[in-house]
Amino acid sequence: MAVVGKLELLIVSALLLLTACYSNVQRGYKTTLKSVASSEGKPWPIPQLYIPTPTTYTLNSDSFKINPTGKTCDTLVAAMTRYYNVIFYPGRQNDALRFKPISKSKLTVGTELPYLNVNLENDCEIYPSLDMDEWYQLFVKSDGAILTARSIWGALRGLETFSQLVYQTPDGTFTINDTKIEDYPRFSHRGLLIDTSRHFVPKKILLQNLDAMAYNKYNVFHWHIVDDQSFPYQSRHFPELSNLGAYDPHTHVYSQQDVAEIIEYARQRGIRVIPEFDTPGHSESWGPAIPGLLTPCYKSGQPDGSYGPIDPTKNSTYDFLKVIVMEWTKVFPDKYVHLGGDEVSFDCWKSNPAVTQFMQKMGYGTDYSKLEQYYMQNILNIVSSDQDGYVIWQEVVDNGVKVNPDTVVEVWKDRHNPATYKAELSKVTGLNLRALLSACWYLNDISYGVDWPKYYACDPHDFQGTDAQKKLVIGGEACMWGEYVDGTNLISRLWPRASAVAERLWSPKQYNNTAEAAPRIEEHRCRMLRRGLNAEPANGPGFCKYEMQVN
Amino acid sequence: MAVVGKLELLIVSALLLLTACYSNVQRGYKTTLKSVASSEGKPWPIPQLYIPTPTTYTLNSDSFKINPTGKTCDTLVAAMTRYYNVIFYPGRQNDALRFKPISKSKLTVGTELPYLNVNLENDCEIYPSLDMDEWYQLFVKSDGAILTARSIWGALRGLETFSQLVYQTPDGTFTINDTKIEDYPRFSHRGLLIDTSRHFVPKKILLQNLDAMAYNKYNVFHWHIVDDQSFPYQSRHFPELSNLGAYDPHTHVYSQQDVAEIIEYARQRGIRVIPEFDTPGHSESWGPAIPGLLTPCYKSGQPDGSYGPIDPTKNSTYDFLKVIVMEWTKVFPDKYVHLGGDEVSFDCWKSNPAVTQFMQKMGYGTDYSKLEQYYMQNILNIVSSDQDGYVIWQEVVDNGVKVNPDTVVEVWKDRHNPATYKAELSKVTGLNLRALLSACWYLNDISYGVDWPKYYACDPHDFQGTDAQKKLVIGGEACMWGEYVDGTNLISRLWPRASAVAERLWSPKQYNNTAEAAPRIEEHRCRMLRRGLNAEPANGPGFCKYEMQVN
Repeated sequence: MAVVGKLELLIVSALLLLTACYSNVQRGYKTTLKSVASSEGKPWPIPQLYIPTPTTYTLNSDSFKINPTGKTCDTLVAAMTRYYNVIFYPGRQNDALRFKPISKSKLTVGTELPYLNVNLENDCEIYPSLDMDEWYQLFVKSDGAILTARSIWGALRGLETFSQLVYQTPDGTFTINDTKIEDYPRFSHRGLLIDTSRHFVPKKILLQNLDAMAYNKYNVFHWHIVDDQSFPYQSRHFPELSNLGAYDPHTHVYSQQDVAEIIEYARQRGIRVIPEFDTPGHSESWGPAIPGLLTPCYKSGQPDGSYGPIDPTKNSTYDFLKVIVMEWTKVFPDKYVHLGGDEVSFDCWKSNPAVTQFMQKMGYGTDYSKLEQYYMQNILNIVSSDQDGYVIWQEVVDNGVKVNPDTVVEVWKDRHNPATYKAELSKVTGLNLRALLSACWYLNDISYGVDWPKYYACDPHDFQGTDAQKKLVIGGEACMWGEYVDGTNLISRLWPRASAVAERLWSPKQYNNTAEAAPRIEEHRCRMLRRGLNAEPANGPGFCKYEMQVN
Repeated sequence: MAVVGKLELLIVSALLLLTACYSNVQRGYKTTLKSVASSEGKPWPIPQLYIPTPTTYTLNSDSFKINPTGKTCDTLVAAMTRYYNVIFYPGRQNDALRFKPISKSKLTVGTELPYLNVNLENDCEIYPSLDMDEWYQLFVKSDGAILTARSIWGALRGLETFSQLVYQTPDGTFTINDTKIEDYPRFSHRGLLIDTSRHFVPKKILLQNLDAMAYNKYNVFHWHIVDDQSFPYQSRHFPELSNLGAYDPHTHVYSQQDVAEIIEYARQRGIRVIPEFDTPGHSESWGPAIPGLLTPCYKSGQPDGSYGPIDPTKNSTYDFLKVIVMEWTKVFPDKYVHLGGDEVSFDCWKSNPAVTQFMQKMGYGTDYSKLEQYYMQNILNIVSSDQDGYVIWQEVVDNGVKVNPDTVVEVWKDRHNPATYKAELSKVTGLNLRALLSACWYLNDISYGVDWPKYYACDPHDFQGTDAQKKLVIGGEACMWGEYVDGTNLISRLWPRASAVAERLWSPKQYNNTAEAAPRIEEHRCRMLRRGLNAEPANGPGFCKYEMQVN
């Protein structure tokens, strides 16, 4: 890590020299009215090495071409078309007129950039994975632009960056600066959790959110698909789960076709979909469909009609889990599934006589965390017997469950006390396990004013540990829990706040100057707005050249 | 007030007896999964007298008629058509199929309600006003429904209530309960402030917001149209104000046609539009267009290039104000204009030698509040010479400016300390002036979780004062200042939080039980969603039968 650190410092120094050329020209009186200057054409997240120059070229939508000059595949072809449209015709279809390209006569002002050649060196992989190679190199020169990538995933990241370098001058001319970029992510797992159980989120909003993720180089959609409140996942084997557990079995569900469409949409953008089926707690909505699965709670020696966590004492529980887990691993192509394991309350287990008897039989005494261990061990074994990996919340490890070496532990406690998650990162990596940080990135926790600098300041490497331990932190996740969020406010509440996390997880650690980032994140939110996403203001008062379009 | 109080208590008692019939049937297991039960067909804000019965009627979209049986006019005709569509075909056009009315065969299940007769007793007034009569009476009986109103404004309120009484049973049948309602607002000024200066808000969002206001019986759109940051109002006499003061003179402006359209849209819904042109502070964006209007600030004996409040010492200031004020009173038909007067900083005035000289000439010593008084007195005289009234922020009165008896004083300080605004209400009404409360309703101040009960709990009469003083409180305003809000998040952030304020200002004071209101406000947000507005969740986890539609 020390070597990388020095390299990064060098890059930052180079950037400080070069970005001076790009600060906006003061326009006198009016500029003082705007709190934050724009920084058009500056990418977000900032690349590892980014050397723009003041020389500019123009782009003509009629003649500009994106050509594959190396390997190619359906994913690349689709991406080239997509990014052509993102550059010249962003947003919804009825915006086409608004973004009418400049007339050819005006284009003679500058040197025209004729093409972007995409030189993909290796055959495309079908699905992105934890080990995917996202490295790319991008040169924008007078004779053309060249994007080089070893893998399709790097090519996708490079296309995104290229699209961000293009901006429109006040007269409408599409413009790009002569630029050199070499880029790769600092962390390999850059996730975003969306909760579709506390509130149902329409599929189209999830697809919009995948667009936003691609625009921010996120690469994992952590789909917290079911929870206590509802079970919108339509199972192949157990359709009753959503028939009885969804808010509405017809309108508030994700069909197998919906799930497949979401996975494909994500795949096309180099985004992994990791579903979370949180057990043994957070599973109340499973109960109606699977009699006997949940623990009946007792009061005064009688069942009181309420249910607690999944009943870990019954063989039928594991018979059921084997079938449903096999289904998940088939439906979701990623090697990893998230198995939850957080916030298991022992009260109901304690009240239940059959559970008490089982505790005695197993010699657990009154240590219910051993019972939780027993359950988690069983479900982890089921998953790993399928050659699949798992992500789990930190409690599983905290409770002493023996996990596989390739387990990923997500550290989420707690956002109000950084010392706790730093200690947990030390502990988890000290056990030689890989870790994800999400504790400081609970974006559902809103407050008045600008809060992205808080997320920007949190760094997953800021804990006590050896270099080897730091390497075990494979990334982090921004979380948008759904208690107060649904389709009406998810996009605007999440973006560009989640962009702060995206840059922290992609860009050099030393890139942590809020003052430098402020105009760039505002510009990035304007970019998302121009592309049809309702990203809310990043900073204080201001405006975007292209505000949202309302139908 | 004592008599009204007893009447209200009687009504609440009646309601407690009757609403028992409307609690949702427990559906066993699944119901416990939802935090808040729905309460379809219950109106928001709750009427003064509301007596539903368990008898229900069905509505057939093919045969149901809304008939004018008294006076009529364009406003009523448009509203009858609008509410027919709101009931049977809400939302956007592509939702038509989703809301396909039930087939006739199924309608034989219940007694069909054939019509709603609208008996308007008096000729329509063109524009709503502070003195408008919003009383109405509504009977839903087996032979038909009858809405009686003295004025067009009461008829509009009654149509809104009628539309809310209609709900769809699970099989899709449009249904209404046999009901008696007598209704009128507790306060006559029920305002909502939108700030279009810190961020520009597209016209279509303002129109959507007027829909939402009508659905909540708000009757004043307080349009904080310009401020320091930008001047989007396109003036007839001074086009340079927006040419030089708007964020963008072409895309970030409200043309005269836009303003007229907004006023007409509001008028059709019985909503007054009161523009605020805040001076002498909050006026930096005016500067570029009107040289000499703002006070140049000095540093070390030299102008430092920055500007402070409007320069109150020059005759040219008042010459300009006469023209622009006359324009406002012509463009905006309401008798009232909001003249601001808040947060005037004296620093710049203190630094300016010409201002110092004027202070000496006038014998003000170093009391700059006297200079502010002088300015406000002048602008208030200009407005009142036009026979117009004004609303001003509390500082104007706090600083001792002599105001006309019909002045409305808006109390906004401060939300963190209820004692301050209660004392201010005592003081303002003690001066025999009319008051508006907004201090406790700054909805821009967001926080994590459910916050509407806080707004619901604030009552404009909770201050020390005589009955006569209480009568001088004519209402209040919810405020959505625009520092962090634009078209992307305005609707979802405002609704249904602003609904809590709406009920406080319309319904009996005794209607203050959060537990009773919780399912009703959630249902009301679902109602807004069904009508095409992206109102966010009101409470915790849950769902609406019709979630938002995404294009």
